[in-house]
Amino acid sequence: MADSQQLDIDEIVRDSFNLEDAIQLTDKLSQLEPEEVAIALEAMPLEQRVSAWLSLPPEEQIAALTYMRVDARANVFKQLTEQQLKTLVEEMDVDDLIELLDELPPAIYDYACSRLDVSQRRWLDTALTYDDEQCGRFADHNMLIINKNAKVRDALRLFRELAADTEYHEALFVVDRNGCYVGLVHATQLLGLTDFQAIENIIDQDAPWIEGEVALDQASDMVSRSGYNALAVVDENHKLLGRLSISRAFDIVRRNLENQFMLTAGLDEDEDLFSPVIASAKRRALWLGINLLTAFLAAWTIGLFEATLNQVVALAVLMPVVASMGGIAGSQTLTLIIRGLAMEQITPSTYMALLRKELGVGTLNGILWALVIAVVTYFWFGDWVIGGIIGLAIVINIIVAAISGVMIPIWLKKFNIDPALSGSVILTTVTDVIGFCTFLGLGTLFLLG
Amino acid sequence: MADSQQLDIDEIVRDSFNLEDAIQLTDKLSQLEPEEVAIALEAMPLEQRVSAWLSLPPEEQIAALTYMRVDARANVFKQLTEQQLKTLVEEMDVDDLIELLDELPPAIYDYACSRLDVSQRRWLDTALTYDDEQCGRFADHNMLIINKNAKVRDALRLFRELAADTEYHEALFVVDRNGCYVGLVHATQLLGLTDFQAIENIIDQDAPWIEGEVALDQASDMVSRSGYNALAVVDENHKLLGRLSISRAFDIVRRNLENQFMLTAGLDEDEDLFSPVIASAKRRALWLGINLLTAFLAAWTIGLFEATLNQVVALAVLMPVVASMGGIAGSQTLTLIIRGLAMEQITPSTYMALLRKELGVGTLNGILWALVIAVVTYFWFGDWVIGGIIGLAIVINIIVAAISGVMIPIWLKKFNIDPALSGSVILTTVTDVIGFCTFLGLGTLFLLG
Repeated sequence: MADSQQLDIDEIVRDSFNLEDAIQLTDKLSQLEPEEVAIALEAMPLEQRVSAWLSLPPEEQIAALTYMRVDARANVFKQLTEQQLKTLVEEMDVDDLIELLDELPPAIYDYACSRLDVSQRRWLDTALTYDDEQCGRFADHNMLIINKNAKVRDALRLFRELAADTEYHEALFVVDRNGCYVGLVHATQLLGLTDFQAIENIIDQDAPWIEGEVALDQASDMVSRSGYNALAVVDENHKLLGRLSISRAFDIVRRNLENQFMLTAGLDEDEDLFSPVIASAKRRALWLGINLLTAFLAAWTIGLFEATLNQVVALAVLMPVVASMGGIAGSQTLTLIIRGLAMEQITPSTYMALLRKELGVGTLNGILWALVIAVVTYFWFGDWVIGGIIGLAIVINIIVAAISGVMIPIWLKKFNIDPALSGSVILTTVTDVIGFCTFLGLGTLFLLG
Repeated sequence: MADSQQLDIDEIVRDSFNLEDAIQLTDKLSQLEPEEVAIALEAMPLEQRVSAWLSLPPEEQIAALTYMRVDARANVFKQLTEQQLKTLVEEMDVDDLIELLDELPPAIYDYACSRLDVSQRRWLDTALTYDDEQCGRFADHNMLIINKNAKVRDALRLFRELAADTEYHEALFVVDRNGCYVGLVHATQLLGLTDFQAIENIIDQDAPWIEGEVALDQASDMVSRSGYNALAVVDENHKLLGRLSISRAFDIVRRNLENQFMLTAGLDEDEDLFSPVIASAKRRALWLGINLLTAFLAAWTIGLFEATLNQVVALAVLMPVVASMGGIAGSQTLTLIIRGLAMEQITPSTYMALLRKELGVGTLNGILWALVIAVVTYFWFGDWVIGGIIGLAIVINIIVAAISGVMIPIWLKKFNIDPALSGSVILTTVTDVIGFCTFLGLGTLFLLG
């Protein structure tokens, strides 16, 4: 019995720097699942990644690529010669090709297509009628299909032929003579049946199926909640397109959640740890530019109160406190709402209840921290008026932040803008501008007057 | 054939507000998978949630609770009388109880324990020898176990008795006479075998297994990458404790990723959309307090330059631009590194390569945006010196941000502090303080002197 190992990426990455141990590295990689190979390759700088990947046999090279993030994989492709790419695509089946086609140079893609047989070519064409957010595009063709008029004997033969492949092949997909999906037959149902019993009598018709137009993330949720290993994906005429397996669904959900996290910094989940510097700088520059605009807006707001600042420099010193408290309070509400929207748990009938609750939380915390800040300010600057002004500004800004934290993501979602990406920029702009305006405005009113 | 439905939470939540449609709501909930019921219940305000939940039959009540987030579920428990809680726990099996025990009042928990039979009691005691981050605690006992000396006939009987339950029961877990785990037998392997063949000859010993001490998230990764529906969880003597199924692993990975996202705002994944206001305000207050300390630190830094600000008010106006650009650039690096650490893709042998890359990106973007900001500043204040000062401060701050973005999360991880929670507070403090110091320091040097 082989020892059960946990993945040690650290060790593998270290080996990749050691040119003398190339064979040992290949050995280690070959013992891993393809998903683990992909993770290890992504953890290596480009040079090491390419040479480690080149050392793998072709089928493992392809499997690793299909599991790698888009940028990490594109950075490998860029290092290959045309001949290497051609040799590579010759080994790909249609599912690999659908997954990788966006990163292949057009000439290589055409070459790969020209080598597909008629049925694979038809699958490819069907898949491409769906866009890359729809599950019809990525339905997996690696499945066992049986006609509903078949006998148990035929089902047994299908299972026997695939005995070696353990990846979620415990069910047959049953179709009628038009190729329309009818239901599932599970291996466990066949146990103890005789060869000539009819498949038709044991079909599981309770399993949900998925329309090809359904968004990939919704389809993945359906699979994960269904309790089945894989669900059928069908076209508008109910023809079987392929299946979506739980392991694929898992991957999709994981990437979506990762994406949400990365978006908060204006990145996406495909960002490669070791992207070339210039490519990476270019991609991040836009986000910095957008934020610069909002920073200048905040600066301009402050500029409106130059006369006040000139006379009461304490206000300039305390400005970041007002802006920061509003920003933090707002981002707590925003984050909660973004997660709720992602889970589709925020519905029009509960908008008001949510707003009331967040306003309550904002008011309580606003008053609490306003008092603390007012007292600290008094002891710092020895002036109750400045303390009172900053306290009032804090209460107002935290309440505005609570309202914005609820409303901004809901509005963005209505306009189909991803709130995980743009929510926090907009929110911070609101809390900065409102914070500076109330604080410096109150200062002008009570300290200059 | 039933129509394949997508979950419409919106409609269900709307129904929960309509007291006359109580029966219709219960009907709709009963058609959903337990995970979907949990999602719908979480989307309802507390009052609606409790009455919708109470309308379900006991077994569905329990299933929904086990899928709900901790806070959402605790908020339901708080509304129940002692008698309702007792009735509820009477229906729980040991797996439900292990999942829910932390939210049950101690008296109810003791009552529930007293009602378990001997073997369930033993499972509970074994589970509790592991802590709630280890997979031994949550190993699922709902599995088919067979002795390695058994015959195919016995295996068939086991499968037949469980025919109705489709949730990942396509394999038998094989143990020896001491209860030690030996391997798996898949339903597909049994097809076509005769009753008296020995199980021993067909055991799949390639399937990985998981030690009970392994962390829940690592165990989940192992299941997801293995290609199996469920893996055995064993104790230090290799005795079978239970299994970890792919659907459970899915749930754990999803919650971990959600948690990472929520932590960036000082929340956690258990945060209930409709927590009572006071409980919610209390929980968020701490995070605001920590951020207040850092904001006062930034304010104190500015305070060191009061004399300068008094003479050159333009510096006060432009301060937020310097701080904001550093913060954003830093959080891009930070987010990339946090994801890398979570995937265990960041290893000591690549620290320097990462630092070099991020320094390169920071230098490029620093110079680019410093030039833009210098020019804008010149046109705004008509002063090349201020333009030069802010440009230089921006370059320095973005480079410091890049270094901090790499180093802070790596250090935090070394001290076992979650970088998703504290990384951004520390980073922003660094970029604020360094930003204000360089900008106002350069201002003092070149504008007062």
